[in-house]
Amino acid sequence: MDKNLLIKLLDSVADGSTATLDAAKKLQHMAYEDITYAHIDHHRSLRKGFPEVIFGEGKTADQVAGIMEKMVPQEKIILVTRIDRNKADIILSQFPSAVYHGDARMIVLELETIPIKGRGPILVITAGTSDIPVAQEAYLTAKAMGNRVETIFDVGVSGIHRLLNHKDSIERAAVLIVAAGMEGALPSVVAGMIDKPVIAVPTSVGYGVNFGGLTALFAMLNSCSSNVAVVNIDNGFGAGYMASLINRV
Amino acid sequence: MDKNLLIKLLDSVADGSTATLDAAKKLQHMAYEDITYAHIDHHRSLRKGFPEVIFGEGKTADQVAGIMEKMVPQEKIILVTRIDRNKADIILSQFPSAVYHGDARMIVLELETIPIKGRGPILVITAGTSDIPVAQEAYLTAKAMGNRVETIFDVGVSGIHRLLNHKDSIERAAVLIVAAGMEGALPSVVAGMIDKPVIAVPTSVGYGVNFGGLTALFAMLNSCSSNVAVVNIDNGFGAGYMASLINRV
Amino acid sequence: MDKNLLIKLLDSVADGSTATLDAAKKLQHMAYEDITYAHIDHHRSLRKGFPEVIFGEGKTADQVAGIMEKMVPQEKIILVTRIDRNKADIILSQFPSAVYHGDARMIVLELETIPIKGRGPILVITAGTSDIPVAQEAYLTAKAMGNRVETIFDVGVSGIHRLLNHKDSIERAAVLIVAAGMEGALPSVVAGMIDKPVIAVPTSVGYGVNFGGLTALFAMLNSCSSNVAVVNIDNGFGAGYMASLINRV
Amino acid sequence: MDKNLLIKLLDSVADGSTATLDAAKKLQHMAYEDITYAHIDHHRSLRKGFPEVIFGEGKTADQVAGIMEKMVPQEKIILVTRIDRNKADIILSQFPSAVYHGDARMIVLELETIPIKGRGPILVITAGTSDIPVAQEAYLTAKAMGNRVETIFDVGVSGIHRLLNHKDSIERAAVLIVAAGMEGALPSVVAGMIDKPVIAVPTSVGYGVNFGGLTALFAMLNSCSSNVAVVNIDNGFGAGYMASLINRV
Amino acid sequence: MDKNLLIKLLDSVADGSTATLDAAKKLQHMAYEDITYAHIDHHRSLRKGFPEVIFGEGKTADQVAGIMEKMVPQEKIILVTRIDRNKADIILSQFPSAVYHGDARMIVLELETIPIKGRGPILVITAGTSDIPVAQEAYLTAKAMGNRVETIFDVGVSGIHRLLNHKDSIERAAVLIVAAGMEGALPSVVAGMIDKPVIAVPTSVGYGVNFGGLTALFAMLNSCSSNVAVVNIDNGFGAGYMASLINRV
Amino acid sequence: MDKNLLIKLLDSVADGSTATLDAAKKLQHMAYEDITYAHIDHHRSLRKGFPEVIFGEGKTADQVAGIMEKMVPQEKIILVTRIDRNKADIILSQFPSAVYHGDARMIVLELETIPIKGRGPILVITAGTSDIPVAQEAYLTAKAMGNRVETIFDVGVSGIHRLLNHKDSIERAAVLIVAAGMEGALPSVVAGMIDKPVIAVPTSVGYGVNFGGLTALFAMLNSCSSNVAVVNIDNGFGAGYMASLINRV
Amino acid sequence: MDKNLLIKLLDSVADGSTATLDAAKKLQHMAYEDITYAHIDHHRSLRKGFPEVIFGEGKTADQVAGIMEKMVPQEKIILVTRIDRNKADIILSQFPSAVYHGDARMIVLELETIPIKGRGPILVITAGTSDIPVAQEAYLTAKAMGNRVETIFDVGVSGIHRLLNHKDSIERAAVLIVAAGMEGALPSVVAGMIDKPVIAVPTSVGYGVNFGGLTALFAMLNSCSSNVAVVNIDNGFGAGYMASLINRV
Amino acid sequence: MDKNLLIKLLDSVADGSTATLDAAKKLQHMAYEDITYAHIDHHRSLRKGFPEVIFGEGKTADQVAGIMEKMVPQEKIILVTRIDRNKADIILSQFPSAVYHGDARMIVLELETIPIKGRGPILVITAGTSDIPVAQEAYLTAKAMGNRVETIFDVGVSGIHRLLNHKDSIERAAVLIVAAGMEGALPSVVAGMIDKPVIAVPTSVGYGVNFGGLTALFAMLNSCSSNVAVVNIDNGFGAGYMASLINRV
Repeated sequence: MDKNLLIKLLDSVADGSTATLDAAKKLQHMAYEDITYAHIDHHRSLRKGFPEVIFGEGKTADQVAGIMEKMVPQEKIILVTRIDRNKADIILSQFPSAVYHGDARMIVLELETIPIKGRGPILVITAGTSDIPVAQEAYLTAKAMGNRVETIFDVGVSGIHRLLNHKDSIERAAVLIVAAGMEGALPSVVAGMIDKPVIAVPTSVGYGVNFGGLTALFAMLNSCSSNVAVVNIDNGFGAGYMASLINRV
Repeated sequence: MDKNLLIKLLDSVADGSTATLDAAKKLQHMAYEDITYAHIDHHRSLRKGFPEVIFGEGKTADQVAGIMEKMVPQEKIILVTRIDRNKADIILSQFPSAVYHGDARMIVLELETIPIKGRGPILVITAGTSDIPVAQEAYLTAKAMGNRVETIFDVGVSGIHRLLNHKDSIERAAVLIVAAGMEGALPSVVAGMIDKPVIAVPTSVGYGVNFGGLTALFAMLNSCSSNVAVVNIDNGFGAGYMASLINRV
Repeated sequence: MDKNLLIKLLDSVADGSTATLDAAKKLQHMAYEDITYAHIDHHRSLRKGFPEVIFGEGKTADQVAGIMEKMVPQEKIILVTRIDRNKADIILSQFPSAVYHGDARMIVLELETIPIKGRGPILVITAGTSDIPVAQEAYLTAKAMGNRVETIFDVGVSGIHRLLNHKDSIERAAVLIVAAGMEGALPSVVAGMIDKPVIAVPTSVGYGVNFGGLTALFAMLNSCSSNVAVVNIDNGFGAGYMASLINRV
Repeated sequence: MDKNLLIKLLDSVADGSTATLDAAKKLQHMAYEDITYAHIDHHRSLRKGFPEVIFGEGKTADQVAGIMEKMVPQEKIILVTRIDRNKADIILSQFPSAVYHGDARMIVLELETIPIKGRGPILVITAGTSDIPVAQEAYLTAKAMGNRVETIFDVGVSGIHRLLNHKDSIERAAVLIVAAGMEGALPSVVAGMIDKPVIAVPTSVGYGVNFGGLTALFAMLNSCSSNVAVVNIDNGFGAGYMASLINRV
Repeated sequence: MDKNLLIKLLDSVADGSTATLDAAKKLQHMAYEDITYAHIDHHRSLRKGFPEVIFGEGKTADQVAGIMEKMVPQEKIILVTRIDRNKADIILSQFPSAVYHGDARMIVLELETIPIKGRGPILVITAGTSDIPVAQEAYLTAKAMGNRVETIFDVGVSGIHRLLNHKDSIERAAVLIVAAGMEGALPSVVAGMIDKPVIAVPTSVGYGVNFGGLTALFAMLNSCSSNVAVVNIDNGFGAGYMASLINRV
Repeated sequence: MDKNLLIKLLDSVADGSTATLDAAKKLQHMAYEDITYAHIDHHRSLRKGFPEVIFGEGKTADQVAGIMEKMVPQEKIILVTRIDRNKADIILSQFPSAVYHGDARMIVLELETIPIKGRGPILVITAGTSDIPVAQEAYLTAKAMGNRVETIFDVGVSGIHRLLNHKDSIERAAVLIVAAGMEGALPSVVAGMIDKPVIAVPTSVGYGVNFGGLTALFAMLNSCSSNVAVVNIDNGFGAGYMASLINRV
Repeated sequence: MDKNLLIKLLDSVADGSTATLDAAKKLQHMAYEDITYAHIDHHRSLRKGFPEVIFGEGKTADQVAGIMEKMVPQEKIILVTRIDRNKADIILSQFPSAVYHGDARMIVLELETIPIKGRGPILVITAGTSDIPVAQEAYLTAKAMGNRVETIFDVGVSGIHRLLNHKDSIERAAVLIVAAGMEGALPSVVAGMIDKPVIAVPTSVGYGVNFGGLTALFAMLNSCSSNVAVVNIDNGFGAGYMASLINRV
Repeated sequence: MDKNLLIKLLDSVADGSTATLDAAKKLQHMAYEDITYAHIDHHRSLRKGFPEVIFGEGKTADQVAGIMEKMVPQEKIILVTRIDRNKADIILSQFPSAVYHGDARMIVLELETIPIKGRGPILVITAGTSDIPVAQEAYLTAKAMGNRVETIFDVGVSGIHRLLNHKDSIERAAVLIVAAGMEGALPSVVAGMIDKPVIAVPTSVGYGVNFGGLTALFAMLNSCSSNVAVVNIDNGFGAGYMASLINRV
């Protein structure tokens, strides 16, 4: 539940505009709500500054919609990740103001405008064109969490001059997200240029011994640049989330 | 090279106390210095806010000392990681003011007092007693980089009440480092309690299918808490470094 | 063959209601029956207290039905696991009183009512919504084997308060089954709260370095709680079976 | 802390033989005790029916002794696992009544006689002679936890008649622990003979593609017998612990 | 090319019924024939006692038929393995006397009757029903190579009495092929009963940590019975081929 | 951009046929061109002697066509790799003079005739028929880069005489590319016959423990012949590219 | 127990030279003997044609000697494998007629002369000099089991002419054992030359991605020659044992 | 055998200075020499332009010296790789003119001066100081094979300016060898700057998920630069050998 909504409710009790019993009823579902197939963690917005994000994979469209329905009254924004177009169509028919982003496979349902809270811009960089879907997931997440977000795509290390030409944007960023598949070398090079934290996102782009992104992941964990931390393969969402929290420390 | 040392040098040229030719000689080694077996990156302090840290493994004591010798005139603090006691003894005989930390296998040579630059405290937590050496590496690094650092050791998830009793320290921290071996579950639980970034450090503690820390690493990358990013196994240094940069964003 | 059926047969010989030759004929297929593509282990009910369970994967619908046909005269209950809806439809057309559970991909054919034999309740817990199909397989198996079974779904460690609120049910259970994917941390936390055996079931829920459940499996085998033993990935059936035997020790 | 000790303390307060302040002081360390390098979980005996077991690997002899010192006043029995002879010698010089078992690498410090609590005998079986050390760890643990424990060693599947000759002991056991390295086939065969739960312990015995026990582990997780659950490689302690809890359900 | 065909050709030259030039033309393609996409090894029958077997996977139906066309004039029997029904239909329309075995995914084109050459019966055993397709591939290969072949299906180790009841057949066999998935324990048990060579074939039957047959493979390579050698996963053909050569030593 | 095109442009400025401003405009896109989803590296022809090759996997047909459109004015030849027929059809409708090679999954758009620049013939060898698609990718790439290219297909080591009969071609080649799946032994044998560099290409042909080409890859990296270097699994393009550069050293 | 010894005993009962009670006492230990740490399988000679072979690894010298002591009265030959020189010295002091082979790490105790039983010569080939210890283990085992054994060492595929020059020996052998490390290609080439069964033994010789012999193992399992079956890495004993049984089929 | 030595011998026969019988005796050992534990491939110099190189690992000092003894009369230079100092001391006592290079663990015995045959300089680059031993092995090999060789050490991608400052040397090289551990990114960046072939050598430098060099290896095989081929981990020798052959194409 959003903190402001909670305060507003308590204020309305204080000034008598909400009856105690009505408030109690509303509050009782606040810690979490058990709808058999899910324990919705309404408390998360208070505790973590952002509501629970729905992981779409392995849930039916009905389950996702059912969780969203319970969250709408309590939150400002709802994100669903890893949701394919078929499920999304069913869900959007129920929440027409939600937007589906096909490349990032995300639904964003913005119930109130999200103000900018981050200290500086978050910059999302990719090594190749094929890494863009993962980068988009990071981009949408970081935007939803109240950050200015910039992007530079397809500046992999086989043509290092392309990267060096973006030196200004890179140095201006407060936090960086670098997505790369194949040999996963880009985060090391970018991180070597700056004194800002870099969240590296390995992508499953490549073939043969890229092992669905594993090689890029291990390369990033072995980075000779020390200002690199890593999230799971293709986890653009996690990168955007982590970068957002860093940007508010 | 340290930024202040650079400004001081330029000032001394400006006020005539240093001859131009002497200054030029000093400056020429500033980008990097090639001593055959190493290209010392003196420029790093300017570019990245902290001097190059010497990775001791695979280098002879003489090589480490040789690199330190070149760095001393230009830096405020020098760190050597992954250095065993035998090599350390040789090095310390040459740099008597350096301190060797046996548990963390680090040498710290503080040439000037390091002021606090971080926004809030960095908290280092371990799941078990055996994870402490890795935690110490993180602790020493974060301290060397100008942070207040606190620690809580041996609060693994098999007795969750031990962890919950430290809730206040956990919520007060600006950035958290959580080191765990075995099943690597602690970062997920800690991260679920707060809205701050957590750097997870898998340790090689355990046996059988912990695979020298790999299981903990993968568990952390799969964390169901989104405010977790991960560094390499036993990489306490990297965790401390990353947390320090985050603490200054 | 069910023990009671065997005794009944022998009694009927004793009191003359069944002719010796008829009984002999019935008995001759009792150790096992060779139907070319399968050796049906009729002796299993006597030896193991529960009839052979048919593993549906890799068998044709006809093979499954053929095995069921031979078992019906000798058993009280027949289970088929890992059977998809297409095959199930064919089989159910032949055994109309059987029930197909789509989420658990199981057929249950109850020929007699199964009495409760377990000492206490078996509790099935999942970390997420997507783990429910595996939990259902455990639930149906444990019920078929004569246990009271309870469930708590979606109480993963990223919101530990959801779990702690179910403390009473958890402490009341005689045996626990905990299914989790991703980092597989939940069994450790649950097991740390109690002095009862916990059967941990890794699920293939997750992506990237969850490796189809392998990370959860290894995490569970590395559990810092000692009252945890593990079954194969997604093996809800095995967990339910093992828990049932434990519940009768 | 042992439950009886707690009740005794409270009784002594009730009858005036212990002053309230003295009792309070004793009680304050009961949840856990923070001795910097460890949070000793004194509450574990109450919560889990058995005190914390000290994992010796990665701890210094001093750390182990320090933890034991704090536990002695509160517990009936103390176990230390994975402790080599050198460390054990140091520790035993401080706790002369403790016993070191070299094959199992365990210290057992029995402060009071442990009564039998288990329902039936626990049977520990090994496939080979080289698996005995792991079996001993299980044996000692199960005995320390109040069970009758029997053993059969070196009855691997390459000479199946050796196993079948022990049919009586096998059928008499309430819970079975089966340790095997190499191809890890023994638990499947044993479990197929009975209707009791089998805890399978893979051992690292073998070479080449046994991968330090991994092959045995995976074979056991794939067991075609359903009454098998598995613990980590060489984890005799875990097997003994789990079997003990099962034996009290 | 078949040895007898070669001798017949040479005889016909000797007795003048074939002109030297015609014979030369026929002989020139005998070592191998280069048809651009394949070098058909006609020499193999002479060198290895059996013609080249066509591995169907990754070849088009046209390529397979093209190779068969070149082999027909020179061989007594042609085998195609790993060929799906669609390709087989195309091929059989061109070679109507060939037979397609759907379960084994093999085409057998018998151009002359194959006499029995093996010393004793080859026995093919499977652990489960789902292993039968692999066993069939071995069966058809061994039969095509001139052996008496017997089969016993579904006698896995979870009900060891099923296996022991076939002791006579097992002891009568000259060479044994044992196919098993899951934990792959059956070859060890069978081999422990006899003094004959056992070819173990791991199958991909199972799920989770059977890793598509890898666990069974490794278990078999770790067999505590020494009269076991192993072929690739699901390689029924290789097992049948190897057993046939052994049966003629 | 092609070097000759660049010189021609500068010449036309020198002789006044192109206005300075027009030339400047043309030149400004020469280092690279940012079309949002890609940074096209026009500088690559100058730097590396061959234009950027478009990796088709993970790009839409529109993205590929968009990149080609920007390259056409500046290059002599354009290659697209890993492009399936559906995407190719869309692209060829826009570039009718481009040719799609279905077996190699490549588009070649030759804008000018490519002269032979290589010192000697490049020879492409395969172990089996199923390796031909990978070999074709190498063949087309090497031809596009200005080499004479020869091929020998299906001469694997199970019939070594087939290989030895091609000794002359093998000894005549300046550089060799050897593609093999399964056990990947062919490059070792070929390399042992000559003193020329061999580029080994593992293919994903095989099943079971070939692990999609990994076994062939590792075998090749372990080659007991020292004149072997290796590229990624199925990377015919990389082999052709590398061989071409070697052929011009 | 050796079959002849058994018959002799029974004969001596028949002719009265042995008292019934004495014979009974001797016979009672014949199935197996339980000496606490081992179940010695005396029955193995009858069942399998060769006594149990003692695997030395993980057993103490005393345990090995204890087992030998029980076997001496019943067997003609005793083998101990994987036994290092230190243990061997202790054992030989007790069995002075035993011989220790340092390269093969085997003890052979020949109590009676072993007659030749194999049909033809067994040929042991190695790819390199470093593979010889494994080959020696195979050689000694096959000799102990009654075979003529020949050897050819260091004829790896990087100089194929060395192998081809031994064509006669290779074609003369009844069974072949081929040991190779690194890329493990030799068994495929050898097997391609003949129509006899080849037992391939991967060795751990090599470095990097040979993975302690795993690459050679997988290469051999993927052999494009069908007359190859494989044993565990460095398992010279198993290869010799298997070849011996094949040589008697 | 060296080609010139062969011609000289034949000339001396032609001019009568060597008797035919003496020449025959010398020639008979030329194809290869069988000294029981090794088949020395004297023919290699003729066939491959460089004599057999002795792989020291797994051979005794005596075996190495024995092989050298046979090679000395026939070769101009002898290399021994992977030889530790202890063995080297024994060997050098027998061949005093040989030189041992401790960092590269190589013996070089130059019997005649090696003329320069390579077209241009070979450049050996390392990412770190710890990679130097591997680079030295490549350096010594390439020099022994008749090349000018240059080196640049410690220019990893975390400080990209260090690398860019060596642009001239990099562009001047005919062939490049790039050794890197950890994330293995350097070959991609170097290869992206030039149009020359790059041999990438992964080193085992690093810890945790570098897996003894595996991550660097896989990263290099996934290189987004196409002019990269790879050799085994730490295989400096192979890189130097391959580069030498490339430099003579």
